[in-house]
Amino acid sequence: MKDTRIIYKPIGIIRSEHKLAEKTPIQPVYAKGCKGQAEIFDEFAEGLADLDGFSHIYLIYHFHQVRETRMIVKPFLQDVDRGIFSTRAPFRPNPVGLSIVDLIKVEGNLIHFDGADILDGTPLLDIKPYTEKFDLHDVKKSGWQDEVDEETAHRRGKRGHRPS
Amino acid sequence: MKDTRIIYKPIGIIRSEHKLAEKTPIQPVYAKGCKGQAEIFDEFAEGLADLDGFSHIYLIYHFHQVRETRMIVKPFLQDVDRGIFSTRAPFRPNPVGLSIVDLIKVEGNLIHFDGADILDGTPLLDIKPYTEKFDLHDVKKSGWQDEVDEETAHRRGKRGHRPS
Repeated sequence: MKDTRIIYKPIGIIRSEHKLAEKTPIQPVYAKGCKGQAEIFDEFAEGLADLDGFSHIYLIYHFHQVRETRMIVKPFLQDVDRGIFSTRAPFRPNPVGLSIVDLIKVEGNLIHFDGADILDGTPLLDIKPYTEKFDLHDVKKSGWQDEVDEETAHRRGKRGHRPS
Repeated sequence: MKDTRIIYKPIGIIRSEHKLAEKTPIQPVYAKGCKGQAEIFDEFAEGLADLDGFSHIYLIYHFHQVRETRMIVKPFLQDVDRGIFSTRAPFRPNPVGLSIVDLIKVEGNLIHFDGADILDGTPLLDIKPYTEKFDLHDVKKSGWQDEVDEETAHRRGKRGHRPS
């Protein structure tokens, strides 16, 4: 199992205004007003049927600029060493990114969304609906994030982005 | 871009009581009482630091038994054809699974959780914290899922599982 290789191929490309990783907001909640598009390759466009009924979707993508794995990182929101799996930092063993974005509309093979916290040119792996039945959970504790106040989180999370 | 291959390797294995795909609950919300474990390979165990502070985590994994891709599927909760990306069905171009589970405890390289909707032996790709700041969104509409009443969803979603 340990040496199994799992091979994925992009289903499309993310387009956004973000050209530099270090200036890209770290989460959709800190990227309000940043519009993005997901361009889906023609062979998968049929699979977009019915997606426009959802107000929010998950985008699952590959952090294509990441070149290293770290087990301990300082998260973007706090200057304290933390285990990588307790953070959303990109330096993961498998550099998979996960963003919950506001769906604006689906137009042919193009998905328009708000809350783009993703670098322009990022390979998209999957799209899933974010739904009332499946994805709203009663969060009791958010670990080290509970130590970070909202103002600090927004300031650090935006990384220079000013809402339009 | 279209022919890029993205290669991932398992960071661990999911253990659960579910040995047959067709009897496995379709989501953690329909798998209450199903305990599971994620066994993380030693080389990644250091990355589990601080994870135990969170009440919920995302498990991202590979649907290893899936052998086909379909663009249109009948979702588990409804007998109507839908685009694959508007569902959580496994027959995706990249068969990535996403479950938000209740974290019970982290013990060495073992994560104990409740809400196991994952087949025993599934390769784990990533773990992320599910947090109050990042993951709770104001769902306005859930597409075709809004047509499915809660009783029907629970009955179909459990697929034979009886809460312990």
